[in-house]
Amino acid sequence: MPQTIRVELSERGYDVQVAAGALERIGETVAGLSDVSQAVVFADGNVAGHYGPAVRTSLEAAELTANVIKVPPGESNKTLAGASAMFDALFDLPTPIDRDTVIVALGGGVTGDMAGFVAATALRGLRWVNCPTTLLADVDASVGGKTAVDHPAGKNLIGAFHQPRAVLIDVDTLATLPVDEVRAGLAECVKHAVIRDAALLEYLEDHIEAMLACDPAVMTELIARNVAIKAEVVAADETESTGERAHLNFGHSIAHAIETLAGYEAISHGQAVALGMVGACRLAVSRGLIEDELADRIEELLAALGLPIRRPGLDAAEVWRVMQYDKKNRGGQVRMILPVTLGAVAEFDDITPEQIDRAVAAVSAAR
Amino acid sequence: MPQTIRVELSERGYDVQVAAGALERIGETVAGLSDVSQAVVFADGNVAGHYGPAVRTSLEAAELTANVIKVPPGESNKTLAGASAMFDALFDLPTPIDRDTVIVALGGGVTGDMAGFVAATALRGLRWVNCPTTLLADVDASVGGKTAVDHPAGKNLIGAFHQPRAVLIDVDTLATLPVDEVRAGLAECVKHAVIRDAALLEYLEDHIEAMLACDPAVMTELIARNVAIKAEVVAADETESTGERAHLNFGHSIAHAIETLAGYEAISHGQAVALGMVGACRLAVSRGLIEDELADRIEELLAALGLPIRRPGLDAAEVWRVMQYDKKNRGGQVRMILPVTLGAVAEFDDITPEQIDRAVAAVSAAR
Repeated sequence: MPQTIRVELSERGYDVQVAAGALERIGETVAGLSDVSQAVVFADGNVAGHYGPAVRTSLEAAELTANVIKVPPGESNKTLAGASAMFDALFDLPTPIDRDTVIVALGGGVTGDMAGFVAATALRGLRWVNCPTTLLADVDASVGGKTAVDHPAGKNLIGAFHQPRAVLIDVDTLATLPVDEVRAGLAECVKHAVIRDAALLEYLEDHIEAMLACDPAVMTELIARNVAIKAEVVAADETESTGERAHLNFGHSIAHAIETLAGYEAISHGQAVALGMVGACRLAVSRGLIEDELADRIEELLAALGLPIRRPGLDAAEVWRVMQYDKKNRGGQVRMILPVTLGAVAEFDDITPEQIDRAVAAVSAAR
Repeated sequence: MPQTIRVELSERGYDVQVAAGALERIGETVAGLSDVSQAVVFADGNVAGHYGPAVRTSLEAAELTANVIKVPPGESNKTLAGASAMFDALFDLPTPIDRDTVIVALGGGVTGDMAGFVAATALRGLRWVNCPTTLLADVDASVGGKTAVDHPAGKNLIGAFHQPRAVLIDVDTLATLPVDEVRAGLAECVKHAVIRDAALLEYLEDHIEAMLACDPAVMTELIARNVAIKAEVVAADETESTGERAHLNFGHSIAHAIETLAGYEAISHGQAVALGMVGACRLAVSRGLIEDELADRIEELLAALGLPIRRPGLDAAEVWRVMQYDKKNRGGQVRMILPVTLGAVAEFDDITPEQIDRAVAAVSAAR
């Protein structure tokens, strides 16, 4: 069953459609925005061949001029120079773009981040429609309007909050996704369950095989439930200013330290987040916030999904050092999101090196 | 008398302070924004030596960490590559920036446009304070939150609407401004008078010598009146979507064509705008919107200010060709803002080649 989730942001609100075959109907969605002069599709080089023609056909069937511009895949292209090449292509189209031009992002998180950034800044802001094609992008980056490119000094340092006008999630695109990328998305689903939704944790536990096989019906339900959680958090804190959106960083402080220490090429984001959630849960146990049983249950789910829950050799002092320089800290204090019960978290700004010692000891211990 | 004008944009509203010596009190303004971690000043290379030290001293007296980063002067640096160099410097400061960092722009329009763009996109948006140091930037770019860099395909094609938190206009900075740059600012003042304020036209006619000599009291009054007009227009149409802000383009359609045909190095923006206003006024006369007397009066004022009102050899067919490709057009129609009486304009989307012929004939005629 196709599902539609509304992201409630008053005049910037939009619908997220989750359905098999959604991309074949993109023309209706784009044409449904008022006064569209043309559509420009930025397509990840890896998926442009698969879905570009269908998207173009649908847009043209809706009587829209449509151009497809390929974007080199991979995080290494997610730079200001990469965006610059996209601007060059955008400003060199046969029909010059104007303020009524609509940008379409077609691909994973990198494509969405970059095409969204180009949409945010071309002619001081064009409307855009996001069509994520990976599970991670479906449940995480698709909602919230965070656009960015990386800088040598750090990831996502240059960007804007620029909400899309619509999000189309076609679960058929998951059929060709490598299983490790499915797992990366599932790590974020576990995160959503822990921070907001106990029932989602049960759903995850009950559908492991179907999810890893990307069963379309299960994926539609799974993605819709996760998008609804993300949409609620974003609606409460659009620009990360009230603190609620920070809850989405559960598992990410330690994950970021692990990624920095290992190198971003050596460990996937999903794997790092799984380990980070294990660490945060154990830290929460050591502070008396939750029971061991809940931490055990989350670990078992992560392991059943094929995600790592232990990383031998992790050095607590190194983790602490990196965490101190996390750009999300303010005033020199190390902050973490910790579970207080299943489905609820809070932010703590009094994390000590000793607590990180214990958390890292749990992550690096034999199991 | 120092003056303060409020730009009414609800939660994005801000004050514009106009005063002699305003830069020496910048520390109070920046410190008055809440939770400021540090200030980073992007200063035009031509003015950094003059005002950088005083700005830094004032910021430090307000107990703020302050770094001054020089920006190469000139429109040729206003590119994505130029902005990239600013990001490099910003992300390499001794104290890493965070979301509580405040950017200060110190310089003319180019510096404000670029520093504002960097502020709009660094960490997805930092607060910024604009300190324009040329008359053109004081009365035009200082208010409205338009930030941008140029692309080879056109000016200001990459940018964002990002309102500053405060604007400080120090009229003492005008003392060292070349008179041609004073004239360029005065052209925009004439524009404001024609589109909104008959009394301002009289004020301009009555203070020509004092303005060209940059008398501080007269400049304070002049800038405050112009900022108030711009603020009113921007408040009514923050992102150029209702049409009201388009009124600020009076004189600019023909000006843009003249600049394109002459090359941006060969004619100053102020000179082109003066000629553009003459053309638009004569076109309005030929359409029966205003009387010859008003067009004559505006021409006389422009001439008295030392601005050009004739450009022999201007080719009407070429002007028309360029105007057809103006990025402000929609649906292929050529649009212009024309005066309907002194102090009021309207947008017309039915401009014909014959009307442009007559307007250009007036601009290129002997006087």
